Amino acid sequence: MTDKTPSPAEAPDVADDNTPLHRYRMVIEYDGTELYGWQFQPELPTVQGLLEDATQKLCGQLCRYQAAGRTDAGVHALGMVVHVDLPKHYGPFKVWEALNFFLMDGPVSILSVDKVDESFHARFSCTRRAYCYHMVSRRAPLSILRGKAWQVKARMNLDAMRDAAKVLIGTHDFTTFRNTECQSKSPVKTLDQLDISQDGDNIYFHVAARSFLHHQVRSMVGCLWLVGRGKWQTRDMVAALEARDRQALGYNAPPDGLYFLSADFDSETPTES
Amino acid sequence: MTDKTPSPAEAPDVADDNTPLHRYRMVIEYDGTELYGWQFQPELPTVQGLLEDATQKLCGQLCRYQAAGRTDAGVHALGMVVHVDLPKHYGPFKVWEALNFFLMDGPVSILSVDKVDESFHARFSCTRRAYCYHMVSRRAPLSILRGKAWQVKARMNLDAMRDAAKVLIGTHDFTTFRNTECQSKSPVKTLDQLDISQDGDNIYFHVAARSFLHHQVRSMVGCLWLVGRGKWQTRDMVAALEARDRQALGYNAPPDGLYFLSADFDSETPTES
Repeated sequence: MTDKTPSPAEAPDVADDNTPLHRYRMVIEYDGTELYGWQFQPELPTVQGLLEDATQKLCGQLCRYQAAGRTDAGVHALGMVVHVDLPKHYGPFKVWEALNFFLMDGPVSILSVDKVDESFHARFSCTRRAYCYHMVSRRAPLSILRGKAWQVKARMNLDAMRDAAKVLIGTHDFTTFRNTECQSKSPVKTLDQLDISQDGDNIYFHVAARSFLHHQVRSMVGCLWLVGRGKWQTRDMVAALEARDRQALGYNAPPDGLYFLSADFDSETPTES
Repeated sequence: MTDKTPSPAEAPDVADDNTPLHRYRMVIEYDGTELYGWQFQPELPTVQGLLEDATQKLCGQLCRYQAAGRTDAGVHALGMVVHVDLPKHYGPFKVWEALNFFLMDGPVSILSVDKVDESFHARFSCTRRAYCYHMVSRRAPLSILRGKAWQVKARMNLDAMRDAAKVLIGTHDFTTFRNTECQSKSPVKTLDQLDISQDGDNIYFHVAARSFLHHQVRSMVGCLWLVGRGKWQTRDMVAALEARDRQALGYNAPPDGLYFLSADFDSETPTES
């Protein structure tokens, strides 16, 4: 969920002049419940690690993946966009079938594969990221949705939440809503969307921006929960935002309810699919 | 999912003349993925076993549960109705809170508790059971819905499925759609509803009847899958039904996609809630 400026070590891979790149763009889905987030960690299951293991079985070598969003442990994705460069050309359908085979009905599934040209970069070309946060407002603990939503016991005041959410829309210094480990150069981000909808006990927060700070969505949802249960008013949200201080944060919602929904790109031009 | 006529050993518990019954009706939800079905089995996690363990922690003694539907391993419930007799009076809210506490955020959650009089029986008073079967028609394996739906690769012809489903509506001898271990006295059942709806890749089978044979819903869905992918026509469904022979079954769908939705009772008169 961070948006770092590329350091040289993380810059897009560039092939030798003589080696053509075989770049593939994929849309993937994952259940983050048992995963340690996006980023590769030795000995621990991560989304990047599982993808790279499966790809090594296909290609016989390590191929590094890049993602539009580097989600935390416990966060899920319905439409994460990633890319990878493979050492030779494979038909996209073959890549799709082979990788899903090697992913062996685990927590990561590949929804689609397209061949793209090397100007495409899942992280640096991404112009809009959308998340959904799923809260369940009921007294009974979750069973079927365990790890897939955040259960809160209090009844939520949707009108109050929607009013407070307006405070966050637009361009702001979101330091209060930023994890201290966040590596983004600037705490200033532009929040394009924060809509709240309800369906029975289910409350959905639909959030979109060009990019987010680390923990920004969870921190915004955590504070909106305080508003929904009447502990905070809209003026408290204003004060938290204006404080530009992590200490002013009301609450950080758990990762369970967070889903990376989709990533948009300026020019989406698959060369083959 | 079976509907047995009560044998003496399974007849509703009757208290001594001097002991008033404290009967509680509960609506529960469960994630059947890791459970071995409804029925108690020593050393294995089952819905009945987990409920009885939690209740023993509250009451200090074994209290036997009865359910409207005795689901198989891997089957889920969104609104299963059960009842239990407790050795003394507790307020329903206290029972609710205590049992959810002792169920410890596991796969079973209690949605509501009402005190009822002893004429109520979750199994024998039930007049209508509703299930939903969730099929996902897509090429990519499931990740977030692993164990919670049945993924089929073929595109489904909904019109053909709906046409063939009509064959099953009404009163029939459903021997073909009955597991050989089914203990129901008669294979004749009346199917009130079998509606099929679609939302993107998701296909939902909404099924209702007074009672079902063991595996009946899964067997009907399995045969409709053959119709949806063009392997069977409506006339094959007619032939299967008329055969009254388990050997004529086309396919038995896996438990993953099956959800017990709700149970209806003739007179629902909680005495306290």
